[in-house]
Amino acid sequence: MPQVLTRTTVGIVGAGPAGLMLSHLLARAGIDSLVVDHRTRAGIEATNRAGILEADSVRLLTGTGVSDRVRRDGQPHAGIELRFGGESHRVDFQRLVGESVCLYPQTDVFADLADARERDGGRVHFGVSGTRVVDLASTRPGILFTDADGVVWEVRCDILVGADGAHGVCRSAVPETARRHFFRTYPFAWFGVLVEAPRSAAELVYTYSERGFALISQRTESVQRMYFQCDPDEDAAAWSDDRIWAELQARVRGADGFSLREGPVTDRSVLRFRSFVCEPMRYGAMLLAGDAAHTVPPTGAKGLNLALADARVLAEVVETALAKRDFAVLDEYGPRALRRVWRAQHFSYWMTTMLHRLPGSTDFDVRRQLGELAAVVGSSAGSAYLAEGYTGWPEPRRR
Amino acid sequence: MPQVLTRTTVGIVGAGPAGLMLSHLLARAGIDSLVVDHRTRAGIEATNRAGILEADSVRLLTGTGVSDRVRRDGQPHAGIELRFGGESHRVDFQRLVGESVCLYPQTDVFADLADARERDGGRVHFGVSGTRVVDLASTRPGILFTDADGVVWEVRCDILVGADGAHGVCRSAVPETARRHFFRTYPFAWFGVLVEAPRSAAELVYTYSERGFALISQRTESVQRMYFQCDPDEDAAAWSDDRIWAELQARVRGADGFSLREGPVTDRSVLRFRSFVCEPMRYGAMLLAGDAAHTVPPTGAKGLNLALADARVLAEVVETALAKRDFAVLDEYGPRALRRVWRAQHFSYWMTTMLHRLPGSTDFDVRRQLGELAAVVGSSAGSAYLAEGYTGWPEPRRR
Repeated sequence: MPQVLTRTTVGIVGAGPAGLMLSHLLARAGIDSLVVDHRTRAGIEATNRAGILEADSVRLLTGTGVSDRVRRDGQPHAGIELRFGGESHRVDFQRLVGESVCLYPQTDVFADLADARERDGGRVHFGVSGTRVVDLASTRPGILFTDADGVVWEVRCDILVGADGAHGVCRSAVPETARRHFFRTYPFAWFGVLVEAPRSAAELVYTYSERGFALISQRTESVQRMYFQCDPDEDAAAWSDDRIWAELQARVRGADGFSLREGPVTDRSVLRFRSFVCEPMRYGAMLLAGDAAHTVPPTGAKGLNLALADARVLAEVVETALAKRDFAVLDEYGPRALRRVWRAQHFSYWMTTMLHRLPGSTDFDVRRQLGELAAVVGSSAGSAYLAEGYTGWPEPRRR
Repeated sequence: MPQVLTRTTVGIVGAGPAGLMLSHLLARAGIDSLVVDHRTRAGIEATNRAGILEADSVRLLTGTGVSDRVRRDGQPHAGIELRFGGESHRVDFQRLVGESVCLYPQTDVFADLADARERDGGRVHFGVSGTRVVDLASTRPGILFTDADGVVWEVRCDILVGADGAHGVCRSAVPETARRHFFRTYPFAWFGVLVEAPRSAAELVYTYSERGFALISQRTESVQRMYFQCDPDEDAAAWSDDRIWAELQARVRGADGFSLREGPVTDRSVLRFRSFVCEPMRYGAMLLAGDAAHTVPPTGAKGLNLALADARVLAEVVETALAKRDFAVLDEYGPRALRRVWRAQHFSYWMTTMLHRLPGSTDFDVRRQLGELAAVVGSSAGSAYLAEGYTGWPEPRRR
C-alpha cells in the first residue's frame, strides 16, 4: 500500500466552512496547512443547507479574497418579519443597527471556499477514510488517513485543528476528563420542506402561533424553504403535500389575510436540534472550531456565522503564536471565541423559546410570550437588541 | 344593630394604592366614590413594604395633587447595578432612556394617598368586617360591610371596583366560569431581611451568582433591605445573623473586593411569589384593579406601578363611561390595562429567570444566563431594553 509521510504547519480535519476558511486565512498569512474531509466535494455540494450570513461573515468572504459571488448571488435582507397574533411586525435591521444579513446558502459558502483553496493551490483532500488524530498532547500531533486513491497518509503538524463537525473524530479524541460538555435538548424539532413555488414574502417570516412556530424563508424565485415546529419523532414521509400546506397556512393565518403561495413539496425532513458547547476549545496542540466545539438551534441562524468567526479568531491567534514561537498564545483562542459563542447560544435560545410553543407550557406562558413579542416589536431598544443579535456582534476586543 | 343604606357612583373595595388612587382621581373629575378596607390604617402603615416607583408613578402622585412628599423623601435612582461573574455593571437609566426610578416605600405611597383622601373629604372606611359584594351583574351592585363602630352598611353604586388584593373577596365573587386564571409558580422564594447598617452601595445591586440571586437594596442611611434567593420552604427563624451575612457576602463576593457593610438583622421573612393574571378584568358592573387582577414576581419591582397604572386607566374609562352614559365603554379598560400587565409580566419573568439560579438547571443554563447578562450589559440596545422595562413604558395609546 503506497504511503506518504508529510508535514504541514497546521493540520485541519474537516473541510466545512470553518476548516476551509481557516486554511484560506492562514495561506494569506503565509502559513502552510493541509485539510482533510471524509466527505466528497460532490457529496457536500449535494447537501441542501440554508444560510444567513451576518454582515461580518460577508465581509470575511469578500474582504479576504475568497469570492465576490456572495455580493452577486446573495440576497441582502434588511430585516425580518415577526408574526404573532395574526399580524406581521417588521424588524428593520438597517434602521435599527445599520446592518443587513445576506441569504446565501451554506452550500454556496462551501463551494466558494473550496474553489478559492483550489485556485490558491491549497492542499485539501476530500473523500478520505479512516481519519485518526494522534499525539495531541505532543509537539508533533498527527493526522492519519487514507485518501480517495487508497494512499495511506501520515501528516505531522505543529498545530492540529478539529473542524470536523458535531460528530467528528477530533473532539472524541480529547480524553473525557479534559473536556466539559454543556448542552440542552429541546422537546421539539423542525419539519423542513423545500417547495416549488413563488416567494410568499420578501423577507424571512418568523411566526409564533398557538399551533407552534413556523418560518417562511426564501431560496430562489421559484424554490422556497419553509419550516414548522413538530414533534422530534414526527415521520416526515407520512405527511402529504396537502397536509403540509394546511399546517403551514394555519400557522401563518391572520386578520391581515396573509397566506402562502403553494406548490409541490420536493423535499421534506425532520430536523432535530440542540444547544451544545465543549470547553475548553484547546487540548494540547489541538484546537476545536465550528460545530466540533458548539452547536446552536437553527432559530437564530448562527451556526455558520460562528464557524466563520471561530476561523477568523483562530487564524489570528495561530499567526501570533507562530510569530512569537509561543504556543501559550493558543490559550487566547478559546476565551475569545467563547464570548461570542455564549452570546450566540443565548440569542439562539432566546429566539427559540420566544417563538416556539413549548410543550408543557401553561396558558400563562403563551400570554407571556405574546407579551414579550409585543414588548420587542413595540420598543426600539427591544427591536435593536434583536437586530444586533441577528446581524451579529462586532468582534469582541481582545482582553 | 344600626344600619346605613347609602349610595355612591363608584364603590371601591380595597384601600391600597390602586383603590385610593382611583378614588382620588375620580374625585378630581367630580365623581363620588366610597372606599372600604378590612385592614386598619395603622395596620397597613405598620406593614413593611418596599417600593420602586416608575417615573410615571411619581408624576401621577405629584401631578394630580396627592402629595409632593415623594419628591422630598424619595430617593431618585438613575440606574441599577447588574452583578455577575464577581463584577458589577451599571445600567444607566438616565443615559439610556432619560428616566429614573424613585425608591419610595409602598407604605409611604399609601400614607400619602390616605392623607390626601382625608384632606379632600373622601369617604374611606378602614377596619371594616364581613365585606361582601352583591348583584354584580345588575345595574345596582352593592357592597355590604360592618364598619369599625359596628354599624352595618349597604352601599349601592353604579360601578364597583375590586381593588382588594390577591386574596380579596371581589375576584372570588366572579363565577369561575366567567374568569380565566393565568399563572406560573416559581420553585424558589426570597429570603428578605431588614438590617441596621450603613448603605453598601448607592443603587440597587441585582446579583447573579452560582449560589443564586441576591438583591442589595437601600432604605435609609442606617437601615437597609436585602434579599437572597432561597427554598420556598426555608425557615427564616432558623437563620442566625451570622449565617445570613455569610450567605449574602458569598453571593456578592468578587474580584473587585465588593462586600456588604454588616449590622443587626431586625426582620427576616421568606417571601413566596408567583405570576398571576385574571382575565377579563370586568364582570358586569365590577372591574378589578391591582393585585386583585394580577400579581408579578418582585424582581421587576412592577406590582405597585401596575396598581397605579390600573387606577389611572380605570379613572379615565369610568369618567368617559359616565359622561357618555354608556357602560359598554367599561370594556375598554381591561384590554388597555392588560397590554401593560402582560409586558410587565414578561419583564418580571425575564428579570427573574435571568438572575435566579433555576432549580434543575444544567451547566448549560448557567453559562447561557451569563451569556445573556454579558449580552445585556455589553449592548446599548440590550441595556436600554432593560432600562425601558425597569423605568416603565409610556401609557399605551388607546386603540
